[in-house]
Amino acid sequence: VPESVYKLRVAYADTDQGGVVHHGTYLRYLEAARIEYMRARGIDYARFEREQGLGLVVVEANVRYKLAAHFDEVLEIHTSIPLANRAKLQFASRILRGDSVVTLAEITLACVRIREGKLVSMPAEVLALARG
Amino acid sequence: VPESVYKLRVAYADTDQGGVVHHGTYLRYLEAARIEYMRARGIDYARFEREQGLGLVVVEANVRYKLAAHFDEVLEIHTSIPLANRAKLQFASRILRGDSVVTLAEITLACVRIREGKLVSMPAEVLALARG
Amino acid sequence: VPESVYKLRVAYADTDQGGVVHHGTYLRYLEAARIEYMRARGIDYARFEREQGLGLVVVEANVRYKLAAHFDEVLEIHTSIPLANRAKLQFASRILRGDSVVTLAEITLACVRIREGKLVSMPAEVLALARG
Amino acid sequence: VPESVYKLRVAYADTDQGGVVHHGTYLRYLEAARIEYMRARGIDYARFEREQGLGLVVVEANVRYKLAAHFDEVLEIHTSIPLANRAKLQFASRILRGDSVVTLAEITLACVRIREGKLVSMPAEVLALARG
Repeated sequence: VPESVYKLRVAYADTDQGGVVHHGTYLRYLEAARIEYMRARGIDYARFEREQGLGLVVVEANVRYKLAAHFDEVLEIHTSIPLANRAKLQFASRILRGDSVVTLAEITLACVRIREGKLVSMPAEVLALARG
Repeated sequence: VPESVYKLRVAYADTDQGGVVHHGTYLRYLEAARIEYMRARGIDYARFEREQGLGLVVVEANVRYKLAAHFDEVLEIHTSIPLANRAKLQFASRILRGDSVVTLAEITLACVRIREGKLVSMPAEVLALARG
Repeated sequence: VPESVYKLRVAYADTDQGGVVHHGTYLRYLEAARIEYMRARGIDYARFEREQGLGLVVVEANVRYKLAAHFDEVLEIHTSIPLANRAKLQFASRILRGDSVVTLAEITLACVRIREGKLVSMPAEVLALARG
Repeated sequence: VPESVYKLRVAYADTDQGGVVHHGTYLRYLEAARIEYMRARGIDYARFEREQGLGLVVVEANVRYKLAAHFDEVLEIHTSIPLANRAKLQFASRILRGDSVVTLAEITLACVRIREGKLVSMPAEVLALARG
């Protein structure tokens, strides 16, 4: 299964007074990378939510911060899906600056019917993501 | 018409690498102050949206930044409604640190039916806010 | 003086429960557009802050929200500098979705010595931005 | 060691178009809870950074999202420190809405000299936090 690469530039608003990217900001970066990962494999997530009334919600986030990132740096997020079943979908990501690992993350999603917030089985088209 | 006062403490995540509160953060502060202004006058905004399907959306924001605010400072937002009619509701706020004016803002809201995003007349209960 | 165009895609985290981009989010979009405006004209803002110890801080923000923007839409920010003098630098921006104007904004910046937060005259290289 | 309880109300800006609190928002909530945890035990974190030039930075965040939280709900964050040594300080938190567990989190911090971003030993006054 090929990895997907998402590139971004750190915004000024993403930093905090420590002079580095705030640790919470990375969850936004990772979310944007997942959306593009899905788009590249045929799932337009906006349409997915709108047409099916389903949402992929984060049920677990494990993030290890190895290096600080700074304003205006260009980062790359390499993402793959090591695990996918009817209950959950796991994205594994490395956020890199050049060859250096800035952040490692595993984000686990479940599928819910948005209106009621009720868990449902992962749809087949989502499971297909894991096969690249 | 009496003013309403809302108190907050600046969070670490609210700052940027300039060592001050990011200018965008104040819009969140002002929004929280408006919600409490309404609650104190009998409008539970969460219920308003849910039960009436209406939303008060920002159509104009004018903010003057006079002084920087910093992490962990306690700020007070003094809010009043200088203008209210069927088309719009304007909140005027001063954000203070002690006696010093940090920020001045006028935020103008219109009322929309959320599902279609269509403008509707300001409901009577909202107009009543302006009478204190 | 030519305009600068900055393109972005609305992130999921940029929305609120009204189903649209939160009004505060636009200040981040506009900030990113200003950074790229400057980069295209020879000012690397990260280096500017680091090497000169100066910062361009927002002293006034006037934003008119004409249309709502939504998750995953592609927006274009057209930016120009209608006013530049020793005291301030004003950026005027239109945020467009296709041909529709989503937001109009004037953001006025002053120059400060970051360490003390003290106002200083706008440097010549910044004033040169206004000449394109 | 007694727990610390931090109370907050969910802001409108904290939500996303799924109608719930965005998963990234919780890292801000947890950060604010840590700051108050420290204040209650004698560490004014703003002064700590300013006077010692040290910062407590997040090196690992593990968050399990059990239930969605919604706009205007009041949440309580119960925090303790299960682990503290020269290399790291771990905060364990439960975010509750009434008796229901919304989120579980372990946030691990290290101590850095802010100017260089270099790791240093956890100061004695910080280690003392773990003794309540």
